[in-house]
Amino acid sequence: MNKNSNLHMTTEEFRKQGHAVIDWIADYYDHIEDFPVLSQVQPGDIRSNLPDSAPQKGRSYEEILADMDSFMPGITHWQSPNFHAYFPCATSGPAILGDLISTGLGIQGMIWATSPACTEVETHVLDWLVDMMDLPKKFKSTSTGGGVLQDTASSSSLVALIAAREKASNGNINEKGYNGKLTVYTSTQAHSSIEKAVKIAGMGKNSLRLVNVDESFAMSTNHLRALIEADIANGFTPAFVCATAGTTSSTAFDPIGEIGKICAEFNIWLHVDAAMAGPAALCPELRFIHKGIEFADSYTFNPHKWMLTNFDCSVFYVADRKTLIDAMSILPEYLKNKGTESGAVFDYRDWGIPLGRRFRALKLWHVINYYGVVGLQKYIRSHVANAQELRSWIEADERFELMVSAPLILICFRHKNGDGFNEKLLHTLNESGRLYLTHTKLNDQFVIRISVGQATTTLDHLKKTWKFISKIVDELEEANH
Amino acid sequence: MNKNSNLHMTTEEFRKQGHAVIDWIADYYDHIEDFPVLSQVQPGDIRSNLPDSAPQKGRSYEEILADMDSFMPGITHWQSPNFHAYFPCATSGPAILGDLISTGLGIQGMIWATSPACTEVETHVLDWLVDMMDLPKKFKSTSTGGGVLQDTASSSSLVALIAAREKASNGNINEKGYNGKLTVYTSTQAHSSIEKAVKIAGMGKNSLRLVNVDESFAMSTNHLRALIEADIANGFTPAFVCATAGTTSSTAFDPIGEIGKICAEFNIWLHVDAAMAGPAALCPELRFIHKGIEFADSYTFNPHKWMLTNFDCSVFYVADRKTLIDAMSILPEYLKNKGTESGAVFDYRDWGIPLGRRFRALKLWHVINYYGVVGLQKYIRSHVANAQELRSWIEADERFELMVSAPLILICFRHKNGDGFNEKLLHTLNESGRLYLTHTKLNDQFVIRISVGQATTTLDHLKKTWKFISKIVDELEEANH
Repeated sequence: MNKNSNLHMTTEEFRKQGHAVIDWIADYYDHIEDFPVLSQVQPGDIRSNLPDSAPQKGRSYEEILADMDSFMPGITHWQSPNFHAYFPCATSGPAILGDLISTGLGIQGMIWATSPACTEVETHVLDWLVDMMDLPKKFKSTSTGGGVLQDTASSSSLVALIAAREKASNGNINEKGYNGKLTVYTSTQAHSSIEKAVKIAGMGKNSLRLVNVDESFAMSTNHLRALIEADIANGFTPAFVCATAGTTSSTAFDPIGEIGKICAEFNIWLHVDAAMAGPAALCPELRFIHKGIEFADSYTFNPHKWMLTNFDCSVFYVADRKTLIDAMSILPEYLKNKGTESGAVFDYRDWGIPLGRRFRALKLWHVINYYGVVGLQKYIRSHVANAQELRSWIEADERFELMVSAPLILICFRHKNGDGFNEKLLHTLNESGRLYLTHTKLNDQFVIRISVGQATTTLDHLKKTWKFISKIVDELEEANH
Repeated sequence: MNKNSNLHMTTEEFRKQGHAVIDWIADYYDHIEDFPVLSQVQPGDIRSNLPDSAPQKGRSYEEILADMDSFMPGITHWQSPNFHAYFPCATSGPAILGDLISTGLGIQGMIWATSPACTEVETHVLDWLVDMMDLPKKFKSTSTGGGVLQDTASSSSLVALIAAREKASNGNINEKGYNGKLTVYTSTQAHSSIEKAVKIAGMGKNSLRLVNVDESFAMSTNHLRALIEADIANGFTPAFVCATAGTTSSTAFDPIGEIGKICAEFNIWLHVDAAMAGPAALCPELRFIHKGIEFADSYTFNPHKWMLTNFDCSVFYVADRKTLIDAMSILPEYLKNKGTESGAVFDYRDWGIPLGRRFRALKLWHVINYYGVVGLQKYIRSHVANAQELRSWIEADERFELMVSAPLILICFRHKNGDGFNEKLLHTLNESGRLYLTHTKLNDQFVIRISVGQATTTLDHLKKTWKFISKIVDELEEANH
C-alpha cells in the first residue's frame, strides 16, 4: 500500500474503503438481532453461488464488499446477544480496533528483534493480568515464569504437555522419542483438546488416564491418587495432570488445591485449564474458581471467550519458563541475532508451536485500557447476575430440572419429558433463528446448555429468551398429547 | 458493541474511532519510509515506559490510540519497501480490510455449523488456488483431498507429520504412543520447523535424518536413498520426507520428482514445504519450482509471505483427506451436530491443532478478487525482475561474490574480505535504519541475504539500497586500511 500505484490499493483508496468497512461493521452490530442466530443454510448452499474459478482481472473493492452481504446467510452470529451456544466468544469495539492496528502494522514478532514492542507489550500486559486476577506471582516475567499469547487453549495445553513431557524425561523424549512410560491424567469431563494433545505429542491415548468425577462433575482426587499409585506400581512415570476450572459441559471446578498436593507429592506437572471461567477471577468474590492455583505449573484462559477480546487470544502462563524454553527451542543460523545472544529478551517463538507471531497483545492492551479493571469487573458481574436470574426462573418451573448448580454463566437443564423431547426442543429452538443453544450429555442424559456471556446480552434478552422457550415447550407438550 | 451502552463502545463511537484508526494506518503507510526499518531500541526500553499496573478506570479511546505512537520506536517495519530481512511478509490494502471484516464479524468456524460460510469460502478459495498455481487436482476438495488454512507453515508441517505418522503406524501411535521405529527425512537446509515438529510429535530428534545437499544446496537423492535403505536394514520404517521448494537460507529447490519416486518406491509420505516460493507458481514460466509436485501427499505455502495477504495465513493441502481426519479427529458430545453427522460437510477443527478458527479465508478472498490472477502475476514478475536486476549489479562488482544462483527474489552474497568484514557490514547497515538485512551461513561462511518482496519495493528502492551498501562498503574498506 502506498500513495501511487496502478497495481496496489492506494492509501487514498484505503481510507475511503476502510471507512466503508468500519461503517459496514457498525451497521452489522446495529442490526445483528435481525439475523437468524444459527445459520439456516444447507451444506453447499454458499459454495454453489461462488464462481468456479478465480477472476483473471481484479474486481473493484465495492464489488468485493458486496460479496460479504452474499456470505451473510452462511454466518452464525456469535456476537448476537441471543447466542447462547458453546461458550461466549465475546468481542468489543476496542478489541476490533486493537486487532485492526495489529493487522495494519503487518509486523511479525517471532523474536524480540523483529519488533521489540510486540514482545515487550505482550510480556507486560500478561504481567498486569497476573495482578488483576490475583494469580501466583511465579507466573510473572519478573519472577521465574512468564506469560505468552497462544491462538487457543488447545495450543496452550499442548505446549504445557510438551514442557511436562520433557521435564519428566529429562529432555530424553525430544532426543529419543516417546518412551512408552509417561502417563497423563485429566477428568472424564475435561476438554477434548487434552486427548488431542496427548495424541499429537506422540504419547498415545493409552497413556491418558480419565479420572472419575463426583456428583458435581469435578475430578475425584481419590481416584486420581489411586490411578497414579497403580501406574507407579506398574513402572510408569506420572508426568502431567490437567485440572479444569470450569469444564465445557457444565462449568465444574476440579479441586485444584487437593490435586496440587498430590502432584507435589509425586512430582507431577499440574496444568490448569480455565479457558472460559478464568476472567471471573477479575472479581475478588469469584476467585473461588482458582482456589489452589498456587500449585499450578502452568495455566491457561482465553480472553477471547469471556473477556471482550476478539478471537484468537489465549493466555498461557508457566511458572518455570526455562523448562518451557528448553523443551521448545531450536535456533537456526538465520534467526541468530544480538538481542537473543544478550539473554536479556524473550523470543516468543520458543514459547509455542508457530514460528511467526501476530502482535496479538495490542487487542488486550486496548481492552484492558478501554474498560479498566472496574469496567471488566462490571461486565463479569452483570453476566453472572443475569445468568443467576435466568437460573432462578428455570428452577421455579416444575417442568424442568437443573442438572448442575450453575456457579457462573452456564446453565445446564432439561425438560422432564426425556431425551427425545429435549432433542426436539433444542432443534425447534435453533431452527427458529431466534436464539442458538447447544447440548451436552451429563450422566448419559441429553442436557440443554444456555451459556450467557456475549458482550451485549442483557436481562431483557434473557427474559425474552425464556418466554420464547416456554412458548415452544407449550407447543411441543401440546403436540405430544 | 451496540447502539446504547454506558459500558461498551457504542456503534457510533466505533464509527468515529474506526475511521481514525483507518486514517492512522493510511498515514503510517504514507510515511513508512521515515522510520528506521529495524527498531533501534534496547531490551526493556519499551516496557520501561509502561505503567506498572493496569488502570482501574477505563481510558478514552483517543488516549489509547496515542499509546500506539509511543510503541512505534519498538516496531521493526516489515512493510517498509526497504525491509529485505528473512522473507517478505507482504500485506496489502484489500488483505487488511478482509481481515478487518473477519475480526468485526467475530465468528468462529471450528465446525461447519458454527458458520457454514467460513468453511465453504475457505474450501472454495483453496480449490481456486489449486488451479491458479497448477497444483495436482488431487489437492482439491472435489477430489480425494482438500485445502485448509493454518497459521504458519510450522503448523502445516506438523499436521502433515502427524498424518504421516499415523498412516505409517496404522493409527497405532495415536493409540499406543510412538514406537521408536519411524524415521523422517529432510535436508540439512530444511526449515527449523521440521525438527521442531519431529520433537513435538514425540518422535525424537534421533528419528530425524538430515540428508546432505549438493552444491546448489538441494537435497541429494543418492544420500536420501542410502539413508532410507540403511534404516530399513536396521528395522526402521521410513514414514515422512519433507522436500523444500525454496529453502530459507538460500531458496534452494529440492528435486521433488526424484524424491517423489523414491517415496513412491518405499511408500513414504512426501510433504513439500514451499512456504515462501509457492506463489511463484502463479506464473506459468516460474512453475519449475514445483516440478514433480504430482508425487506430493501434502503441500504448504504461505500467502502471508509473498502473496499480499497479511500474517497469519498458511495454505495446507492434503491429497487424502481421510488419512488426515482419521489422525486428528476427536468428537466430544458437545460438538455433535446435524451437519457433521450428515457427512456432507468439512469440520476444519479436524484439520489442524486449534479447535477454534478465525474466518481467515476472507482475506484471501479479498486479495484474489482485488488483484485478479493477472494482478498477482504482475506483482510476482516485477519482484523477480527487480531482484534479478539487483543480482546483476552485485555480480558486476568484483568486491563481492554471489553464493547461489538466486532463482527468485533472494540474493545471498558476501564481500570477499571474510566473515568479520561481512558481519560488520551487516550490523552497520542495520544500525543505519535505512534498510534491514539478515544473514545465514552457507558452506560455513557468513553470508548476507537480501530478500526482495515487500509489496511496494520498486527498482528505484533497490538502486538506492545498492548505492547505500556500496557507500558503507567503501567506508569500511577505507577504515580497514
